[in-house]
Amino acid sequence: MFTLYYSPGSCALASHIALEDSGIDYEAIRINFGADEQRQPDYLAINPKGRVPALVTARGVLSETPAILLFIAQSAPQAGLAPLDDIFNLARCQAFNSYLCSTVHVAHAHGGRGHRWADDPETIAGMKRKVPQSVGDAFGLIEQEMFEGPWVMGETYSLCDPYLYTVARWLDGDRVDTTKLPKIMAHMARMEARPAVKTILDIYFG
Amino acid sequence: MFTLYYSPGSCALASHIALEDSGIDYEAIRINFGADEQRQPDYLAINPKGRVPALVTARGVLSETPAILLFIAQSAPQAGLAPLDDIFNLARCQAFNSYLCSTVHVAHAHGGRGHRWADDPETIAGMKRKVPQSVGDAFGLIEQEMFEGPWVMGETYSLCDPYLYTVARWLDGDRVDTTKLPKIMAHMARMEARPAVKTILDIYFG
Repeated sequence: MFTLYYSPGSCALASHIALEDSGIDYEAIRINFGADEQRQPDYLAINPKGRVPALVTARGVLSETPAILLFIAQSAPQAGLAPLDDIFNLARCQAFNSYLCSTVHVAHAHGGRGHRWADDPETIAGMKRKVPQSVGDAFGLIEQEMFEGPWVMGETYSLCDPYLYTVARWLDGDRVDTTKLPKIMAHMARMEARPAVKTILDIYFG
Repeated sequence: MFTLYYSPGSCALASHIALEDSGIDYEAIRINFGADEQRQPDYLAINPKGRVPALVTARGVLSETPAILLFIAQSAPQAGLAPLDDIFNLARCQAFNSYLCSTVHVAHAHGGRGHRWADDPETIAGMKRKVPQSVGDAFGLIEQEMFEGPWVMGETYSLCDPYLYTVARWLDGDRVDTTKLPKIMAHMARMEARPAVKTILDIYFG
């Protein structure tokens, strides 16, 4: 039994979908970012980073999406969410997810979380201006070089798919021209046809 | 036999140390960032991201430090670089390395790679100003909450150690007050006493 702390619209969606996919028993607890709940002592005691996702397990708390996704895949090997017996393909999965967290998510965050890297409003506004380009370029590389299709890693669905879907949901808000990303758009539709995704989106926004 | 592409001063040092630690046969090829070699067609054919590290293996090329480190640990299980038989502790390792790549390295990059997130010189200068604080805060969390000691994960050296050492080498250039980071400073000294680290620093800067 795991407990996932999430906020709708955040990258916690990737872990949430993977938990649904895994068949593992879990509960999901919403953190109200509007009320700054992620920075209150109760939540900081769970995750001192003041962010979501956090996954509470019998052995302790995990944060960071790529780590949580791998842990879910290894906790439910029968669900086949990662090529656990093929270290090269597993590394390819981890490289893809690492790119999402350190390049794609970071480029996106310059739109709404500029205070992480600057204090003055002019700099924060300056960072916002480049978001369509930096996010667009990062997704362009995925579209052209990384995405195999129909799933990220090819024929087999993996823990890369919920994570790509999660960050691709930010594309419109980031003012990226998605007509240049046909593979990623088709992947989004493929993800949204999955019952696990429908279930979670209903909980979040239904 | 692996081939590692690196540049001195970059995060490729983490993978380089882990390769030395692993006992795996490898060669290391220097990419000259001063000559913009990482953006030339020859190198982009290896790593379309135009970055280091890239690890060439018989099955293909890997990028992204957390993925490469896990792959090295899994390629040489006898070297004991990761708790491969303990999925929770492995996830803790991956979470630590994910924090280094997506938060610590990113905060640092706002000092010298601001063009990734802004075009105008004022914004780039504005981002530079906050580097001592954002990098300092990220290392403060490691010092207070994550670092177990004497190694990152506790008594056992792991793939988190070369990566922490690599990013901690940037602290002085990032104008962070390292007197507030005694555990991380002691860890740096511990790393620099290791023959593998000495060997590589000699190749880079000797």
